Amino acid sequence: MAAASLAWSAAALIDKIRKRHPRIHCLTNGVAQAFTANALLALGAQPSMTNSVEEVEAFVEGADALLVNLGTLDEPGRQAMRLAIGVANRRGIPWVLDPVFVERSSGRSTFAHELIAHGPKVIRGNEVEIAHLSQGQAIDGFARALGAIVAATGTTDRLVDGNRAIGIPNGHPLMGRVTAMGCANAALIAALLTVADDPFEGCAAAMLAAGVAGEIAAEHSSGPGTFASAYLDALHGLDSGKLATRARVI
Amino acid sequence: MAAASLAWSAAALIDKIRKRHPRIHCLTNGVAQAFTANALLALGAQPSMTNSVEEVEAFVEGADALLVNLGTLDEPGRQAMRLAIGVANRRGIPWVLDPVFVERSSGRSTFAHELIAHGPKVIRGNEVEIAHLSQGQAIDGFARALGAIVAATGTTDRLVDGNRAIGIPNGHPLMGRVTAMGCANAALIAALLTVADDPFEGCAAAMLAAGVAGEIAAEHSSGPGTFASAYLDALHGLDSGKLATRARVI
Amino acid sequence: MAAASLAWSAAALIDKIRKRHPRIHCLTNGVAQAFTANALLALGAQPSMTNSVEEVEAFVEGADALLVNLGTLDEPGRQAMRLAIGVANRRGIPWVLDPVFVERSSGRSTFAHELIAHGPKVIRGNEVEIAHLSQGQAIDGFARALGAIVAATGTTDRLVDGNRAIGIPNGHPLMGRVTAMGCANAALIAALLTVADDPFEGCAAAMLAAGVAGEIAAEHSSGPGTFASAYLDALHGLDSGKLATRARVI
Repeated sequence: MAAASLAWSAAALIDKIRKRHPRIHCLTNGVAQAFTANALLALGAQPSMTNSVEEVEAFVEGADALLVNLGTLDEPGRQAMRLAIGVANRRGIPWVLDPVFVERSSGRSTFAHELIAHGPKVIRGNEVEIAHLSQGQAIDGFARALGAIVAATGTTDRLVDGNRAIGIPNGHPLMGRVTAMGCANAALIAALLTVADDPFEGCAAAMLAAGVAGEIAAEHSSGPGTFASAYLDALHGLDSGKLATRARVI
Repeated sequence: MAAASLAWSAAALIDKIRKRHPRIHCLTNGVAQAFTANALLALGAQPSMTNSVEEVEAFVEGADALLVNLGTLDEPGRQAMRLAIGVANRRGIPWVLDPVFVERSSGRSTFAHELIAHGPKVIRGNEVEIAHLSQGQAIDGFARALGAIVAATGTTDRLVDGNRAIGIPNGHPLMGRVTAMGCANAALIAALLTVADDPFEGCAAAMLAAGVAGEIAAEHSSGPGTFASAYLDALHGLDSGKLATRARVI
Repeated sequence: MAAASLAWSAAALIDKIRKRHPRIHCLTNGVAQAFTANALLALGAQPSMTNSVEEVEAFVEGADALLVNLGTLDEPGRQAMRLAIGVANRRGIPWVLDPVFVERSSGRSTFAHELIAHGPKVIRGNEVEIAHLSQGQAIDGFARALGAIVAATGTTDRLVDGNRAIGIPNGHPLMGRVTAMGCANAALIAALLTVADDPFEGCAAAMLAAGVAGEIAAEHSSGPGTFASAYLDALHGLDSGKLATRARVI
C-alpha cells in the first residue's frame, strides 16, 4: 500500500467512525482505562469499560468491537475475558488482543496463549511482547499460522497478516514516555475494525492515525504531560490533509 | 430562579466549599476515579475513593457527602455501595446516585432500583439513563414519586424536584468527548450539597459551575485533551463575575 | 547537606535513571495508577502496576524497587502487598511504604503497622499520616526506632533517618490540588533508591526533584489541570541548572 492511498483510506474510515460512533467495549487495566476511553472519544467512538463477570456479556452484546488487554490479571478478570470473547465470537464481532507484559510472568504467557486459541482478529503488542508470543518465529509466519493480523509497534510499526506486510514509521519518541499509549492504540485498532471492510486496512489506518497524531502532538507540547493532552487533541483533529502530508510507508 | 440569582447563589456556595473543604467519599469506577478526584480538588473539596468492603463504612463516617456511581459492578462493589449508603442514611449525610449505563444490562437496572429505594438526595444521569429509570414517566413526576431531586444532563441540563424545575443550557459539546465528565459532575453536586441549605439550589449551582467551566475551557483548548485540563483550571478559577456573565436559565 | 550539593547529587542521580531505566513495581490505588506511571516515565523509569495475587511475585522478581501504597485495601490487595514485600525482602530490593489515609480507618492503621514491621526502606506520608503512625513520637526518634527513612511532606518536606535530617521547602500550593501528587512522589523516591548508594541522598533527590518540578509547573500553568501536565513536563526536563537555581534546604 502506498503512503497516499493509506492516508486516503484512513481518512475515509475515520470519517465513518465520526458518523457512526461505534461502541467499543474495553477490558483493560486500571492504568489505561481513562486514557483509552479518551482516545476512543477523541476519535469519535463510544467506549465502555466494565469488567465485572456479572455484566460483561451484556455489554459485549451491545458493542461493535471488543478490546482485551491483559492488564491486571486476577481470576475474575480472566473469567470476564473468557466470557467477553465467547460473546464476541458468537456474535461475530471482531476482538483485539493486547498482550501487555506477556513476557513478565509465566501465568500471563499461558493465559495469552489460551486466549489466542479463541481467534482474535488482531494481536497488537510491542516488539518484545510479539517476539515472546511468536517464540522466535518470523512475524509473518506467526500471523499466517494464527490466521490473525499481527501488529508489532515500535520505532516503525509493523503490520502483517501472513500475506501482506506494511511498515509505518510515523510517530514520536514521547509516545514511549506516556503510559497507556500502546493500550490506547489497540483500542483505536478495535474502533477502525468496525468500519473497515478489510481488517488489514483498518489496522493500518489505526496505526497511521496514532503515528500522525503523535507527530502533531509533539509539535504542540513541551514534554510528556502536555504531549498526552495534545495527542488527544490531534486524534480529534485528524483529517485527510494532515494524514496525507505526513503518512510514510516502508 | 433567574440566571442572575443562580449565579450569585452558586458563587456564594463555591466560596463556602473553598473555606470548608468538605470531604466527599466517592464510590466510582476506575475510568472516572482520577478525573473525579481532580474535579473535586479543583473546586476546593477533599475526595476519598476507597471502595473496599472492609473500609468503606469508616470512610463514609468521616465524610460530608457520598457519591455512588454504578461504574463497574461486581459483587464486592455492590456490597460496598450498600454499606456506604447504610452509613450515609444513618448519619443523615446526603448521597448522590449516578446510574451510569443503567440501560445497558438488566442486572444494572435492577441494582439501580434497589439503591433508589434507599433514598438518594439526588439522581444524576444523562437523558438516556434518566429515561430508562423513569420508564417513560415525566421527569417531574418521577422526582415527586421518589422525593428526590433528578438531574438529567444534556445539551440543556434539566433539574427537577417535583415542585420546581430549572433548565441550564450552559456547557460545550467537547464535554461529551471527555470520559468521566458526567461522573465528575455528579461529584460536584455531592460537594455542593454539603454547603447548601436548599439541596435544589446546591444542585443547580453544581450544574451551572460545570457548564460555565466547560464554556471557559473550550476557549482555552484546541481539542478534548487540552479541554480536560482547561476544565479543571476553569473550575478552580470560577468566581461570581464569570458565573454572572455566562449563566443562562430556561 | 547544602542546597548546592543536594542539587548536584540529585542531577547526577536523575541522569543515572535516564540511562538505566530502572523498573519500579507499584502497588497503588486506582486513583493514582496512571499519574504515578506517568511521573515515573517522565523521570526515565519504567513502571509496572499489576496487583493480582497470582502475578505480583513474578513482577517484583523483575523489578529494581517496589512501591506499596495503601490505596484501596481489600483482602486480595492486602495479600498482594504481603507477597510483594516478601519477594522484595528476599531479593534485597528497596521498598517504599506510602500510608495513604492511614488515620481514616482502624483496619488501615493496623495493616500499616503490620507492613512496617517488615522493614520498608522509606515511609513517605503527609504530616497527618506520619503523625498518626508515630503516635506523637518525634519524627527522628520514630525513624531511628524503625531503622527506616521517614519523609513527611508538607509546605516544607522533612526527611529524617534517625541520624540525619533535612528540610526542603521547594514546591507549590497547586501540588495539593492534584490527586495522586503525593503517591507519585513516593514512586519517585522508589526510583531514586535504585541509583543512589546512600538511600537518604536518593530520598532527598526525589523530594527536591518533585518540589522543583512543582515550581516550574506553576510558572507554565493556569490552574490544577494544566499544572498536572506541566508537572510531568518539568520532571522530564529537570537538569542540574534548574535544580541548582531553585534548590533550598532548611
